[in-house]
Amino acid sequence: MTANSNSVRGSRPLVSLLTDFGLMDPFVAEMKAVILSICPETRIIDISHQVEKFDVRMGSFLLAGAVPYFPPGTVHVAVVDPGVGSERRPIVVQSERSLFVGPDNGLLLPAAQREGILHVFEITNRSLMRNDVSATFHGRDVFAPAAAHFAYGTPPKEAGPEITDYVKPPYAGPTFEGRNVHCAVFHIDGFGNIVTNLSNDGLTKLDLKLGGKVRLSIGRKRVLARFVKTYSDLRGNEFGVLVGSHGFVEITCREASAARRLRVRRGCAVRVGGA
Amino acid sequence: MTANSNSVRGSRPLVSLLTDFGLMDPFVAEMKAVILSICPETRIIDISHQVEKFDVRMGSFLLAGAVPYFPPGTVHVAVVDPGVGSERRPIVVQSERSLFVGPDNGLLLPAAQREGILHVFEITNRSLMRNDVSATFHGRDVFAPAAAHFAYGTPPKEAGPEITDYVKPPYAGPTFEGRNVHCAVFHIDGFGNIVTNLSNDGLTKLDLKLGGKVRLSIGRKRVLARFVKTYSDLRGNEFGVLVGSHGFVEITCREASAARRLRVRRGCAVRVGGA
Amino acid sequence: MTANSNSVRGSRPLVSLLTDFGLMDPFVAEMKAVILSICPETRIIDISHQVEKFDVRMGSFLLAGAVPYFPPGTVHVAVVDPGVGSERRPIVVQSERSLFVGPDNGLLLPAAQREGILHVFEITNRSLMRNDVSATFHGRDVFAPAAAHFAYGTPPKEAGPEITDYVKPPYAGPTFEGRNVHCAVFHIDGFGNIVTNLSNDGLTKLDLKLGGKVRLSIGRKRVLARFVKTYSDLRGNEFGVLVGSHGFVEITCREASAARRLRVRRGCAVRVGGA
Repeated sequence: MTANSNSVRGSRPLVSLLTDFGLMDPFVAEMKAVILSICPETRIIDISHQVEKFDVRMGSFLLAGAVPYFPPGTVHVAVVDPGVGSERRPIVVQSERSLFVGPDNGLLLPAAQREGILHVFEITNRSLMRNDVSATFHGRDVFAPAAAHFAYGTPPKEAGPEITDYVKPPYAGPTFEGRNVHCAVFHIDGFGNIVTNLSNDGLTKLDLKLGGKVRLSIGRKRVLARFVKTYSDLRGNEFGVLVGSHGFVEITCREASAARRLRVRRGCAVRVGGA
Repeated sequence: MTANSNSVRGSRPLVSLLTDFGLMDPFVAEMKAVILSICPETRIIDISHQVEKFDVRMGSFLLAGAVPYFPPGTVHVAVVDPGVGSERRPIVVQSERSLFVGPDNGLLLPAAQREGILHVFEITNRSLMRNDVSATFHGRDVFAPAAAHFAYGTPPKEAGPEITDYVKPPYAGPTFEGRNVHCAVFHIDGFGNIVTNLSNDGLTKLDLKLGGKVRLSIGRKRVLARFVKTYSDLRGNEFGVLVGSHGFVEITCREASAARRLRVRRGCAVRVGGA
Repeated sequence: MTANSNSVRGSRPLVSLLTDFGLMDPFVAEMKAVILSICPETRIIDISHQVEKFDVRMGSFLLAGAVPYFPPGTVHVAVVDPGVGSERRPIVVQSERSLFVGPDNGLLLPAAQREGILHVFEITNRSLMRNDVSATFHGRDVFAPAAAHFAYGTPPKEAGPEITDYVKPPYAGPTFEGRNVHCAVFHIDGFGNIVTNLSNDGLTKLDLKLGGKVRLSIGRKRVLARFVKTYSDLRGNEFGVLVGSHGFVEITCREASAARRLRVRRGCAVRVGGA
């Protein structure tokens, strides 16, 4: 077997999968079966298959959060693909550390940008796809087999022509105004923690003191929270603000869902200010 | 290690799992632990563990859909088993491409029939089972260890006597009447697409034109849909008819659940006709 | 690669994972990515990621049920960790058969006690952790990397000082009173079976006859059930009592949820008596 040129320690190839397919249907299994048919030694890690259906932004956020923990040389396959079978292009993005395979709809970009994008190729080479390409399931018929070929050692430049007009997602970052910052809810995790797009670096501009009060506006609600290090620093019903494990500011409660208590959804506007 | 006689490329054995066990309980993990205890090099792919409880027909449909994408030599273990511990027999089905291990209740048959059944053996050989066989969990105590032994190289004929009176599921196919076809809802996928038992071959008899209108009756509802190639060919609220990625006709909407909009459940009768 | 000193057959290391993280977020994937970065040949089995959030007792029950089916030498990682980032200690428990890695909150104990505890070490050795240890995700930053190092061959005594004051969960067993036994609902499985903490050994003291009647009190409800071997021994609406596949007494129905019919939750008191 030819080693993936990015691979380390001579170990077997590693492929990650992220989709909005859920786990009831055999869609994910068919992608894995196709990958192992082409590159039998591949190890596969599921990042998530419970991205909200068609929610490209949520998928891109989860992918970008998870990728830094994978070893270099990983091939990441991501499929949140409302435009499957249309003119949207299949692409492979080559970054400094990894390869990213999926639709050209912005899904792969935040993760790849973090690592530094080297090249983006459109996947046009039919020999990297299944013989029969269905109109509705490119995850199985295009992205999985192409990823398996890359994992097996095919250089990404053999996918097709290099392109530069790939879709770049318009991510508006937080904006600062005096001692306040305006940001947005990017994700609500399974514990009900409200994850914003305000990074740790951004937060330091507010000059908050650990243990001190923080004023929050979320949608129409106003809340006084406390800036803490971890969940168990909070008391009973208190709201907390902390830097989560992916480096973004979260609004949280102790052993309860902050999102349910505040009735917050993804996309909601948030203002954070010192008290 | 003895190679599975069906195996290809000298690669490690591949086992698939399909159950109605869900993912909260450790049932699936125990099956995997038993398999890796017997055949440590096995690669395992989960097809689904979210088959509706006790729904043998749904399980058989998902299994038959997924199996063609697996490499030859795969050992498929499927457990949807309301009769566990009763007189229903454990069986292994040997097809042209694969082995199928599970209860003798029709679950394995549609998938195996697609590949051509060579032999069916009752599993009576106690040396292929765990020492303690519980009355309620043959997935762990009978099917998983037997599958692991087959993956390791034990020929299926060592399972027990060949049988021919295994359970054959009574699948009524679609019926044609003039320019209409009567079929049924076999599955509703995670996106809410309504999957019928009308195959692509059957559909061609209706002589529909791509982009043209299709008359649908589903339960008591009548709907005018459009025959399209993929989801993104549809406009806003339009219903579509297309051939899904497993070769069966689906009723669908763009980025919405057709099943929820039409309040359709599995088993519902469907009439499809040209307009 | 150094073999794990507990490993058998010279096979690759095996790590199991149990958490309350759910499957939507990339938390579990990040743990796996960290493990495979350190010990690339590891095989990983998910026991469950759907433990009720923060429910240490439920997690410990599922873990103890699953562990006996794993081969000796397995490294079990369990994270149900409301105290993450506080003073609660990370520990590794060395038993006769396995290693257990997780928080010192009682989660690991029932499983380890079944196998016989040899040593418990606090994990203080920073070289077994990720360079950056977040305050909120020790699963990824402490437990996963430590487990990977143990799987790779690092002896558990290198984790840190041996301790004896680890948290022992207060498990009140069933109590017998004449021909009755008082026990509790420890788990409700995905099929709605009501699993108690009354073991098969305990049940034999009641001297029930297979097929005979059993009087049950669950919460405020009184029910007459039948003592059977397996689910399919029951008729239509009948309630059954049987010894489940993990050796504990269950209250069950045929192809229906006993828990929903009796409106029972975990923790509920149960009295079982001969009729």
